[in-house]
Amino acid sequence: MTLRFDTLPNGFRIVTEHMPGLMSASIGIWVQAGGRHERPEQNGIAHFLEHMAFKGTKTRSPLQIAEAIEDVGGYINAYTSKDMTAYYARVLSADVGLALDVISDIVLNPVFDPREIETERNVILQEIGQTLDTPDDIIFDWLQEVSYPDQPFGRTILGPAERVGAFSQQDLINFVAQHYGPNQMILSAAGGVDHDEIMTKAIELFGHLPRHEPFQMMGADFLGGEKRKVKKLEQAHFTLSFEAPSYRAPDVYAAQIYGMALGGGMSSRLFQKVREENGLCYTIFAQSGAYEDTGQITIYAGTSSEEIASLAQLTVEELKRAPQDMSSAEVERARVQLKAGLLMGLESPSSRAERLARLLAIYDRVPSLDEAIAKIDAVTCQDVREFAANMNMARSAMVLYGPISKAPDLASLRKALAA
Amino acid sequence: MTLRFDTLPNGFRIVTEHMPGLMSASIGIWVQAGGRHERPEQNGIAHFLEHMAFKGTKTRSPLQIAEAIEDVGGYINAYTSKDMTAYYARVLSADVGLALDVISDIVLNPVFDPREIETERNVILQEIGQTLDTPDDIIFDWLQEVSYPDQPFGRTILGPAERVGAFSQQDLINFVAQHYGPNQMILSAAGGVDHDEIMTKAIELFGHLPRHEPFQMMGADFLGGEKRKVKKLEQAHFTLSFEAPSYRAPDVYAAQIYGMALGGGMSSRLFQKVREENGLCYTIFAQSGAYEDTGQITIYAGTSSEEIASLAQLTVEELKRAPQDMSSAEVERARVQLKAGLLMGLESPSSRAERLARLLAIYDRVPSLDEAIAKIDAVTCQDVREFAANMNMARSAMVLYGPISKAPDLASLRKALAA
Repeated sequence: MTLRFDTLPNGFRIVTEHMPGLMSASIGIWVQAGGRHERPEQNGIAHFLEHMAFKGTKTRSPLQIAEAIEDVGGYINAYTSKDMTAYYARVLSADVGLALDVISDIVLNPVFDPREIETERNVILQEIGQTLDTPDDIIFDWLQEVSYPDQPFGRTILGPAERVGAFSQQDLINFVAQHYGPNQMILSAAGGVDHDEIMTKAIELFGHLPRHEPFQMMGADFLGGEKRKVKKLEQAHFTLSFEAPSYRAPDVYAAQIYGMALGGGMSSRLFQKVREENGLCYTIFAQSGAYEDTGQITIYAGTSSEEIASLAQLTVEELKRAPQDMSSAEVERARVQLKAGLLMGLESPSSRAERLARLLAIYDRVPSLDEAIAKIDAVTCQDVREFAANMNMARSAMVLYGPISKAPDLASLRKALAA
Repeated sequence: MTLRFDTLPNGFRIVTEHMPGLMSASIGIWVQAGGRHERPEQNGIAHFLEHMAFKGTKTRSPLQIAEAIEDVGGYINAYTSKDMTAYYARVLSADVGLALDVISDIVLNPVFDPREIETERNVILQEIGQTLDTPDDIIFDWLQEVSYPDQPFGRTILGPAERVGAFSQQDLINFVAQHYGPNQMILSAAGGVDHDEIMTKAIELFGHLPRHEPFQMMGADFLGGEKRKVKKLEQAHFTLSFEAPSYRAPDVYAAQIYGMALGGGMSSRLFQKVREENGLCYTIFAQSGAYEDTGQITIYAGTSSEEIASLAQLTVEELKRAPQDMSSAEVERARVQLKAGLLMGLESPSSRAERLARLLAIYDRVPSLDEAIAKIDAVTCQDVREFAANMNMARSAMVLYGPISKAPDLASLRKALAA
C-alpha cells in the first residue's frame, strides 16, 4: 500500500492509497457539512443539497450525470451524516479520472433548477416515509433526538417534513456558500489509483477556489431523555444510550472495547444472555460511536410485547455487573475483534477511501494503522471496568416503539441502574 | 488468482481461490438444502436447522462456538436461501484452519438439545416478527408466494409461525439425514488461502462420510397472482414480477441486461421516469434473478397513497415501450454495468467464495470469468427487445402493502399491459 497526502494552498486536501492488485477504485469528495452544520430552521438542508447535486449541473442533465458513470459500469452515490456529506463513485481503475470529473461537477456546479427542487422535494418526503416505515431505522433518529435535545447533533439528517417542504433555491445557495469551500473538502481515493494523476486533476478542478471562513459548530451536550411511541407492530423495539468519550478523549478505545464485549458479536454478554440463553430476541447489539466532542454507547433489541420487561431487566443486569466482573478474556477477545475488523475493513476500496477521509477530517493527518493498534493494545481490563463504572447512568436515554405498554419507564430503569 | 477445485470420492467438493495480497479469507460450507428442499409440513426447517447449528455440538457449547471464532477476531454467520444453506466465517489468513474446524463441527455435529430448540424457536419467532415489521422485506416473501403458489419455491424461508412453533428434534434429525450428505456440500474459500492445507483438512473432516441419495426437487411453476394487504403505513409498497429464464436458458443474459436497463441503476428507465422526472418515490428498482428451473423479473417501489396509481401506470408504460424502443446505448450501458459489477464483486473474498460455491452448485464446475463475459457480450439489442416482447404479461404477480386503496388491481394492470 502507498499512502499519499497533499494539501493545496486553498486548503483542499487530497489523500489516496494505492492497493496493489485491484482493478477498481473508490473515489469521492467528503465535504465537512452535515446535520451538525445546520441551524434549526435549516434542519434537513445538507441532505436536500446532497440530493440536488444529482439533479443537474451547468453542463450535465440529471440523466447525463447518471449515464456518465454507468456508461463505464460504475456506480455513483452519496450520503449525509452528522459531520459530512460524501459524494463517491466506484469505477474500474481506468475510469478514475472520469469519475472525479463527474463528482467535482455535481459538488461544484449544481444549478438548483426550481422545477427539479420541487420534484426532489417529493422524493425526499418519500424517503422520510420509508424511514418511518422501518422501525429499527427511525428508532435511532428518535434516540438521537432524546439524547441531544434541541441541538444540531440531535436533529435528524432527513429533517422534518415541514422543513423539507419549504426549502428554496436561495436556501441551498446560502448553505453551499457557507459550507462548500475547498478547505472544507477532502478528496479521497483508494484501490487501483495513481496519486499524481489525481493531484493534477484536483489542482485543475479545485485549485482556483477561494478558501471559506471556518464554521464554528455548536457543541453536543448529551442530556438524555425518553420517548415512547405506541404502534401496532409485531415487535417492541427498544433502544438505550449513554454518553461515551469523543474520539479525542483518552478512554475512547476503552469505550470501544466495552461496547464490543457488551454487545458486539455472538460471544458478547447481551447476545449470550438475552438471545442465546433466554431466546428473547433475534436482534440485539451494543455499539460505541465517537464524534468530535461526544460519543455514545447504544443498545438495540427487538422483542415481543410480553418479553420487553424481561429484556430490559436483563440488559440492566448486564450493564450493572460489567464494572465488577468484566474478565480479561472478554477484553482480550473484544480487542482482537476490533483489530481484525480494522484490518478486514481495509481490504475494500470503498471503506478504505471513507476511512482516509474520516481520519483526515478528524486529525488533519492519517495516523498509521500501527498507531491505532497500539492504542487498542494499551487498554487494560481495569480500564474497561473503570469506563463501565463511570458511565453516567443517570443521564441515559431510552426510546420504545411498538406494543410497549409493558416496558418500564426511564425513571425506573435509571433507578434500577443506580441500585 | 489461482483457482483450485477437487472432489472427494464421496462427492464432497472443495473449491478455493487464492487472492494475492489479502491478509484475510472467507471460508464456508454451502449445503444444497434450502427452502426448495422442504415438504409443505417442513416449511421453515432448513432455516431452523441453520439456527440450531450454532446451539451446540458434541464438543462445543453455543458460547464456545462463538468464542472460538471471535477469540481470533473473526466472525461467523449463516444464511438460508431457496437453494442452499451457507455457514461461513471471515477470518485472518492464519485462522482459516480453525474456522474450518468450527464450521465443520456445527454442520456435522449439532446436538439439537431440546431445551435449546425451545429457546431458538422463540428467537426465530422474533425474527419473523422483525421481518413482518419491515415492509420492504416481507413484501418480497409475499410476492414469491403469489408468483409460485403452493410450491416449495414459493414458500417463505422462515416458514409460518405455526410450523416454527411445532418442529421437533426428530424433524431436524430427519432433515439432516436427507439433505446433509457430503455430495450435497461444497466447501468454498477465497482470499489468503492455501488449497492444499484446506484439502488435507477437508479429507480428514468430510472424507469418511457416506454419500446420500440425491434429492429430487419439485419444479417451480410461475403462475402469478395478487395479494393486497391494507395497513396503516407511511408508504404504499408495490411489487410486480414476471417469469424470466432459468440460468440454463439461452436468454438468461438478455433478461439480466433487460432488468438492468429497466431498473438497475440511476440511468435506468424506471429510476429516470418515476423518480427523477416525476418524484414519485425514493426507492424504485427492477432486477432479474435466475434459478435452476425458473427466474423472475421483479420491480419494487415505495410511494404515497395518492401517487400509487400514477406510479403503477408509469411502470406499465415503461414495460410496454421497452420491446419497441430499447436502444443500443441502453443495452451497451447495461452490459458494461453487469460486467463491471462482476469484476468488482470479485474483489471481496466473501462474495468471491459465495460465487464459487454457487457456480459449482449450478454447473459442477467453475466457468471462467471470460466465459460469463463472452455470454454477456453476445447479447444484442434485438435479443433484449425480443426478450421484453416475449415476457408473459398475462402471468404477472403483484403485491401491494400499506395505504393502497387507490392502487389498480391485477386484472386491470394485466389488461393495461396487454393493450
